[in-house]
Amino acid sequence: MIKAEPMLKEGALKGKTIIVTGGGTGLGRSMVKYFLELGANAVICSRKLEVLEQAAKELEAETGGAVLPIACDVRKYNEIEAMLQATLERFGRVDVLVNNAAGNFVSPTERLSHKAFDVITDIVLKGSYNCTLALGKHWIDQKQEGTILNIVTTYAWTGSGYVVPSACAKAGVLAMTRSLAAEWAKYGIRSNAIAPGPFPTEGAWTRLFPKQLADKLDLVNRIPVGRFGEHQELANLAAYLVSDYASFVNGEVVTIDGGEWLYGAGEFNGFDQIPQEMWDVVEKQVRGKAQ
Amino acid sequence: MIKAEPMLKEGALKGKTIIVTGGGTGLGRSMVKYFLELGANAVICSRKLEVLEQAAKELEAETGGAVLPIACDVRKYNEIEAMLQATLERFGRVDVLVNNAAGNFVSPTERLSHKAFDVITDIVLKGSYNCTLALGKHWIDQKQEGTILNIVTTYAWTGSGYVVPSACAKAGVLAMTRSLAAEWAKYGIRSNAIAPGPFPTEGAWTRLFPKQLADKLDLVNRIPVGRFGEHQELANLAAYLVSDYASFVNGEVVTIDGGEWLYGAGEFNGFDQIPQEMWDVVEKQVRGKAQ
Amino acid sequence: MIKAEPMLKEGALKGKTIIVTGGGTGLGRSMVKYFLELGANAVICSRKLEVLEQAAKELEAETGGAVLPIACDVRKYNEIEAMLQATLERFGRVDVLVNNAAGNFVSPTERLSHKAFDVITDIVLKGSYNCTLALGKHWIDQKQEGTILNIVTTYAWTGSGYVVPSACAKAGVLAMTRSLAAEWAKYGIRSNAIAPGPFPTEGAWTRLFPKQLADKLDLVNRIPVGRFGEHQELANLAAYLVSDYASFVNGEVVTIDGGEWLYGAGEFNGFDQIPQEMWDVVEKQVRGKAQ
Amino acid sequence: MIKAEPMLKEGALKGKTIIVTGGGTGLGRSMVKYFLELGANAVICSRKLEVLEQAAKELEAETGGAVLPIACDVRKYNEIEAMLQATLERFGRVDVLVNNAAGNFVSPTERLSHKAFDVITDIVLKGSYNCTLALGKHWIDQKQEGTILNIVTTYAWTGSGYVVPSACAKAGVLAMTRSLAAEWAKYGIRSNAIAPGPFPTEGAWTRLFPKQLADKLDLVNRIPVGRFGEHQELANLAAYLVSDYASFVNGEVVTIDGGEWLYGAGEFNGFDQIPQEMWDVVEKQVRGKAQ
Repeated sequence: MIKAEPMLKEGALKGKTIIVTGGGTGLGRSMVKYFLELGANAVICSRKLEVLEQAAKELEAETGGAVLPIACDVRKYNEIEAMLQATLERFGRVDVLVNNAAGNFVSPTERLSHKAFDVITDIVLKGSYNCTLALGKHWIDQKQEGTILNIVTTYAWTGSGYVVPSACAKAGVLAMTRSLAAEWAKYGIRSNAIAPGPFPTEGAWTRLFPKQLADKLDLVNRIPVGRFGEHQELANLAAYLVSDYASFVNGEVVTIDGGEWLYGAGEFNGFDQIPQEMWDVVEKQVRGKAQ
Repeated sequence: MIKAEPMLKEGALKGKTIIVTGGGTGLGRSMVKYFLELGANAVICSRKLEVLEQAAKELEAETGGAVLPIACDVRKYNEIEAMLQATLERFGRVDVLVNNAAGNFVSPTERLSHKAFDVITDIVLKGSYNCTLALGKHWIDQKQEGTILNIVTTYAWTGSGYVVPSACAKAGVLAMTRSLAAEWAKYGIRSNAIAPGPFPTEGAWTRLFPKQLADKLDLVNRIPVGRFGEHQELANLAAYLVSDYASFVNGEVVTIDGGEWLYGAGEFNGFDQIPQEMWDVVEKQVRGKAQ
Repeated sequence: MIKAEPMLKEGALKGKTIIVTGGGTGLGRSMVKYFLELGANAVICSRKLEVLEQAAKELEAETGGAVLPIACDVRKYNEIEAMLQATLERFGRVDVLVNNAAGNFVSPTERLSHKAFDVITDIVLKGSYNCTLALGKHWIDQKQEGTILNIVTTYAWTGSGYVVPSACAKAGVLAMTRSLAAEWAKYGIRSNAIAPGPFPTEGAWTRLFPKQLADKLDLVNRIPVGRFGEHQELANLAAYLVSDYASFVNGEVVTIDGGEWLYGAGEFNGFDQIPQEMWDVVEKQVRGKAQ
Repeated sequence: MIKAEPMLKEGALKGKTIIVTGGGTGLGRSMVKYFLELGANAVICSRKLEVLEQAAKELEAETGGAVLPIACDVRKYNEIEAMLQATLERFGRVDVLVNNAAGNFVSPTERLSHKAFDVITDIVLKGSYNCTLALGKHWIDQKQEGTILNIVTTYAWTGSGYVVPSACAKAGVLAMTRSLAAEWAKYGIRSNAIAPGPFPTEGAWTRLFPKQLADKLDLVNRIPVGRFGEHQELANLAAYLVSDYASFVNGEVVTIDGGEWLYGAGEFNGFDQIPQEMWDVVEKQVRGKAQ
């Protein structure tokens, strides 16, 4: 099985500079690592410079690539503009923006204050459109092509209880993806998204699934392929979408969740619980009546 | 609570003749009954004339309306043409087609023969496009307005295991709904659909949920509103959509399922199982980390 | 044709108190008027008290109903709480929230400042979740049932250029609709949405389609049914969805746009431009090759 | 620009045997060629053995791979079973099924006979479920993993006039994709789909866009990225999805259309026609009123 191995040809991202917000930890970092392996330069940003600098050092050591860590609160437009300037100074250009930074926690909605709601939507939605506006204006101004990849979720379109601020914000990011795919493609700017299902990480994962909850819910059981995702699998998809190989993919959100959301959505999928012997009995009764 | 009462003004369907395939039993019959109460004439058809004639007699007695029962296998185009002729002879015109006839049974897909698959798709998809073609050609030829209402399911767009032939066929019917909404509106023909969630009926329901399965699965538990639907609720929606009140609704599929499919689809909705006390504990831990 | 007449039985909303944000003008006002005719009490709010008071006076005169106008900026949570208190003082209870207030204007996205982007998302998304949180907490606290109706757009799911802040925000509102349909139904709170296509109004409409643009674009031509919507058509749908008749409709967004978005989306719908005579020619060639 | 170059690492499909229905011409053939280059064995089938044999010879010469051409009408289950047997005899196993065979032609729907409708739905939907049933039963029986890739269209979910039989059938295939992703993943069988936008081919393309029509419609103008797709771009995506690299992608339909369907769907995308100077004027007027 080669599933968790890197998939693209060597040098697939050579010469590209890629900004990954929230790229110092979790899935963001895994994507950055693979981008570097494929020849890209990377810029990683978050509010925690120390974490970023440590990550940059490790990533450079692991891959031989160049990583620029920048402290930046994506909710603040001027900090994004500063990040863009620093990127241009260091690498001379920027080709790809990955809106990956996010905040989320599980809670019954009625327990949330409006301020808690704001925190999440500001990081996820405002943060994403701030970065997108800054990069888009830059590319259009420079008459340069660019690519945007937004990391969303499957509940961006289905919604989900218990993560409602995140659902609202991610839905907004998905709409931005589709809107700008239509509007900005004439400038050579593609927009796409990935909706990852459950990929365990340090950090986001434990905030979403505190041990008490994880023990109570049988998470793997909801995933048809019977396992969680591996980071390289997401990195492969992300690298493809930001590469020139995906030049004709525009406005698309690619789900990589093992079939999780569809399994929950399909009305009769719960019939999985029925043992074969019961089907033997039912089959005769049902078939008789149906025809 | 007025939920299960008739909702439209008296006479809302006065002067309309409505064909409901499979209108002699189940939800089809409930729709027919309400259409009659609102002043419409009805044509009901299926392969079982005896059942239809009995239903017609009862419906006429209950409502004072006029019902024409016609034996017709919707898989056979010439039988549909004959039904159309009989309708025109009896009522002089036809205004609405409700593609309601369906076949379905639950089975693991690998247990199905290709012929069993054909049976379902032929009844549901071929039956629906046959009726639609016949009525559409008639309306276009007569330069008369018309309305089509297709009864589909929520798994028309999500898919579902264990009812795969039905999923394929209903998805096809939904695509037809949207396609003709775009193409035939210029002739004054509207196309819409309803996706009903679980409404218990004699017949279809027991084929889908044989007692052994129903005992094993906790069906009501998947429906956020905590109950199954009542037939008048579906009839209200159907009557609205076929009426002139919905003249600006075109190409739409309206789901009436208490929130069932979204509840299954949303990644974190299963957190409903977590008791309030556990949230008290989790809340403190989680909030602390998120900010 | 009865399309633009009121459709529900008299008294369908009797005893209900309904808050409609932005209810003093445009489509909001048309909904309020019909709610009043059906027996409801109404609360209308916006930032412009004078406009609201004038509207309330006129609406009361036209319908005989009771209307409470309240100045309220939905971006400010404390103002919403005050509105809720005023509502309870005046009417003793509130049953329905219609999140209708919105801001929007057309612009190439690269011409927007991040602050202009904020203005729209704050009014539309933050305004909607603020109201929803306040009402939801109240209903859950009071162990009372409630209904939420959110006015969105078709580009909430397709996205659209030139109105990107609105697209992001409305997508967020749609996700909230679906999320809370799943999460809050257990408290007796239903959530639904309407996606209206083009319904001309004073105000929003002229901001979206300044005369110079309207002259350039052939708006009606994109709508399969060949006309814009009439306000009563939207009011009928809204009244149905907030009424108890729609008790089994939950988590649904009903589109009422004459088929507009599907017409644009379907790959071959532009073939409408081909005249019949050309089809006569093509038909023979094509059929020959296909079989 | 590397967009139209092969993207996966050498040997990515080594050892896999892949059946591509309709693989002798058009996009099917382009996929087959790339699968062979990546180390797979291929089986191609259609009703025209001569075309297949010629294609097989050429493909083998071009790639050094092994291609088995088999005459097979996918509407006939026994012919599919025979193809499966021949595949097993030649290659010992089969790992991937690509349901690519299709029929389609453009026509106003009211000009179609029900038989013409049947022809398309039988090839596309029945053909796809026949192959899927045969392969699925084989894999489940052999306790072997397998992968299904279905080639659909964007109008599988939007519908489209003028290609309604194809829309119905492709929608059915998409529903099958999602259904079996949920149901059969437990057997190690993944199901995914691709929705290609316009990729010019000899054959299908000229049937869809006869010269008279192509001259009248400005097809490229509807595609945000401003060009049609290139075959290698589709082949790259297809190879990824059938490879083990995509093991966590299940139930997904990936659109590769340059943003075409979203461009048509988004309500305000037509504002692209407005020149910059007009925006200069409008901007001032509009901004003034909105805030």
